[in-house]
Amino acid sequence: MAAGGLRRRLVHLDLKGAPPRASYLAEVLPLLRALGATGLLLEYEDTFPYAGPLAPLRAPHHYSPGEVRAVLSQAREQGLEVVPLVQAFGHMEFVLKHKEFAHLREVKVFPNALNPHKEESRALVKAMIDQVMALHEDLKWFHIGCDEVGLLLSQELFSCNDESGVPQLVQPMIWDYTADLDVEDKVHLIEKYRRCGFSKVWFASAFKGATGVNQSLTLIGHHLKNHLQWLKVAGSSPADVLEGIALTGWQRYDHFSVLCELLPVAIPSLAVCLQALKNGGYSEKIKENVEKLLGMSNLETDTFMSTSLGTFPGSNVLTLVTQVSFYLTSSVDDLLERNRYVTGWFSPYHRKRNIIHPIIMHHFQPDAVSLLSKWNAVVQDLQAAMEQVFHRCTIEEWMEENVHPSLQKLQQVVDDLDKAIKAQN
Amino acid sequence: MAAGGLRRRLVHLDLKGAPPRASYLAEVLPLLRALGATGLLLEYEDTFPYAGPLAPLRAPHHYSPGEVRAVLSQAREQGLEVVPLVQAFGHMEFVLKHKEFAHLREVKVFPNALNPHKEESRALVKAMIDQVMALHEDLKWFHIGCDEVGLLLSQELFSCNDESGVPQLVQPMIWDYTADLDVEDKVHLIEKYRRCGFSKVWFASAFKGATGVNQSLTLIGHHLKNHLQWLKVAGSSPADVLEGIALTGWQRYDHFSVLCELLPVAIPSLAVCLQALKNGGYSEKIKENVEKLLGMSNLETDTFMSTSLGTFPGSNVLTLVTQVSFYLTSSVDDLLERNRYVTGWFSPYHRKRNIIHPIIMHHFQPDAVSLLSKWNAVVQDLQAAMEQVFHRCTIEEWMEENVHPSLQKLQQVVDDLDKAIKAQN
Repeated sequence: MAAGGLRRRLVHLDLKGAPPRASYLAEVLPLLRALGATGLLLEYEDTFPYAGPLAPLRAPHHYSPGEVRAVLSQAREQGLEVVPLVQAFGHMEFVLKHKEFAHLREVKVFPNALNPHKEESRALVKAMIDQVMALHEDLKWFHIGCDEVGLLLSQELFSCNDESGVPQLVQPMIWDYTADLDVEDKVHLIEKYRRCGFSKVWFASAFKGATGVNQSLTLIGHHLKNHLQWLKVAGSSPADVLEGIALTGWQRYDHFSVLCELLPVAIPSLAVCLQALKNGGYSEKIKENVEKLLGMSNLETDTFMSTSLGTFPGSNVLTLVTQVSFYLTSSVDDLLERNRYVTGWFSPYHRKRNIIHPIIMHHFQPDAVSLLSKWNAVVQDLQAAMEQVFHRCTIEEWMEENVHPSLQKLQQVVDDLDKAIKAQN
Repeated sequence: MAAGGLRRRLVHLDLKGAPPRASYLAEVLPLLRALGATGLLLEYEDTFPYAGPLAPLRAPHHYSPGEVRAVLSQAREQGLEVVPLVQAFGHMEFVLKHKEFAHLREVKVFPNALNPHKEESRALVKAMIDQVMALHEDLKWFHIGCDEVGLLLSQELFSCNDESGVPQLVQPMIWDYTADLDVEDKVHLIEKYRRCGFSKVWFASAFKGATGVNQSLTLIGHHLKNHLQWLKVAGSSPADVLEGIALTGWQRYDHFSVLCELLPVAIPSLAVCLQALKNGGYSEKIKENVEKLLGMSNLETDTFMSTSLGTFPGSNVLTLVTQVSFYLTSSVDDLLERNRYVTGWFSPYHRKRNIIHPIIMHHFQPDAVSLLSKWNAVVQDLQAAMEQVFHRCTIEEWMEENVHPSLQKLQQVVDDLDKAIKAQN
């Protein structure tokens, strides 16, 4: 089945959130190649080293031109084809949020869509594409975004005729991240594009970042099903119409949203999906191969809980994020909201007014202290593991969202206990 | 069955937490009488107007001597016998927490138990009892507490012999608040007391304050079962050994713990339990009588959710506390923790750094504002309803524990939304 048209398998690296260090990407690229990727779809967003009038688009943590060149050269060494993605219509928040470019919004209060009727808009997009192309050599493909303005674009595209020249230049990408995507429906859509003159189409699946805006762990089973459905679509379509598939891995739903799953957390999912695509399906034998490639003794696909450690780059991030996601909030809530000594005798009311039962606080103080010290140690390990993969701002953002709320509540209880105990002596 | 010894039915008013205004007690006493109470077990704790060297024992919200006299006189008018309860051994936190009396602790760090070997301890208890007796006329009974030092006391009591004189002066009270209390076990215990020379014993059941240290609503079914079990114990014991039963209604588990169910919230439970005791069981007909006495169209015993309003004193407190307990936290959490726009685009991280999606915040802003205004109105009503029943300090404590945590989180989101919207304009 896979042989029937899904030979190009691009791994989407969404760099608009939690962009990995160039050194981490260098470690990951050989693994992607070994797992069956044939290329990368690089969505730089605000991490590209835009220069000149475009300099405001750069985030503080953007890649340097040297870093971009290094990643591209490593990809070339691995035989991975690179396709840059520059949003050119929708998802332009990282441009249109800036005062310098806000006047190019199609609707004043909407920072996502560019007004395509302005000359200045077209010049802006051209300048962005020019700068990106200048850093890439031998580009065969370029992805011009345009998603999230779907209805409008479909009308553009489906009303094309051969004379417009669009179908000869452009290959549409059909996106669907669901586990139960409608195969028949997709087959009809492909036929429709063909009738409009598009000789080739792409698929876009998802290996992460598609099941919850603030998802911290990846349910591999969902993404495997998504890919098995896409294989069915490929099997039901003429092989010569399919150019390839991009496995998307969204880091954020949009420029303004929280982080979803970090890349290292989703590498097992990516591995399963790539291997399923490469082999035209998933079997016990393929599972064993994935486990071997990731250095995992057992790979679960139907639970968020990864019980096996793995030796792939960033696998310690997966292990520690799993611990935090499963147990941090629940263990702190067990103590603060379900321990009867705490809820009954050390409530916010007591703590604020220093009405403290001198005996009962000793019933849970050791538990509180040991829980805090356990989580401080885990978080310290996670911090160290993340430093190998991410810049400080990503770590800060992830910790602030996923660790601080519970850890600070726990720290506060321990501090209040300390004070209460000191006040007694 | 009830006729077999449970003719004295004392309603325990635990005044160490959420003491009702004297004016509210005046409204409630006729209802208690109508429901089948024959008397009150008054546990003043720190609300008694202790004077002289005992003045430090008074809480700021203690009853005045005039208020105590008024309550006693209203009880007399209703034919309700009053038994004062003064803790004399255990549960002495309200005394022993004070510097003036801390040296009378049996164990230095334990503020609950008095050292009974010190002359000064005995003088203290005697002074307390004297002051309480001086405000009560014609006392037939006096409850000297002594619970929570159970093992020690049992050894005292069971080693008594007729010559000590204790069994002639003292009637033990057997406490059990569980729904499945062991009837056989209790029958044996009564026999044991009898063999030790105690000719009479009391039971102590619970109509509230016994199922969770921070319980806000009363599950009537639990307490009804507890009383039906006590009826079985009464039915299996010689009628002449049973002096009566005290229906306890704890406001706090101890002096230092949070409030559990407020008195008006538990009046339906008290009604069901009193009527079950009076009639020797519970039936559809008795249920109808309770509904009539409380002005409730339907009285649920197996759910915390009271769907019917009631016309008894303080019934609006029950209605509003039910709303708050069932829906405040859950509705705020639904918005703040389960609304994808909030979790994805208005997280603490976004709010702290003012990284705000200008469109998406409008997707939930109206919901947040309307939820806040709804709860502000409910809380205002509850505040007004509680003012009829309680002093300011009780309302403050209850609100701080049960309302503020969720309401303040919601208020903060609305404030942050306001700021973000203003920053846009």
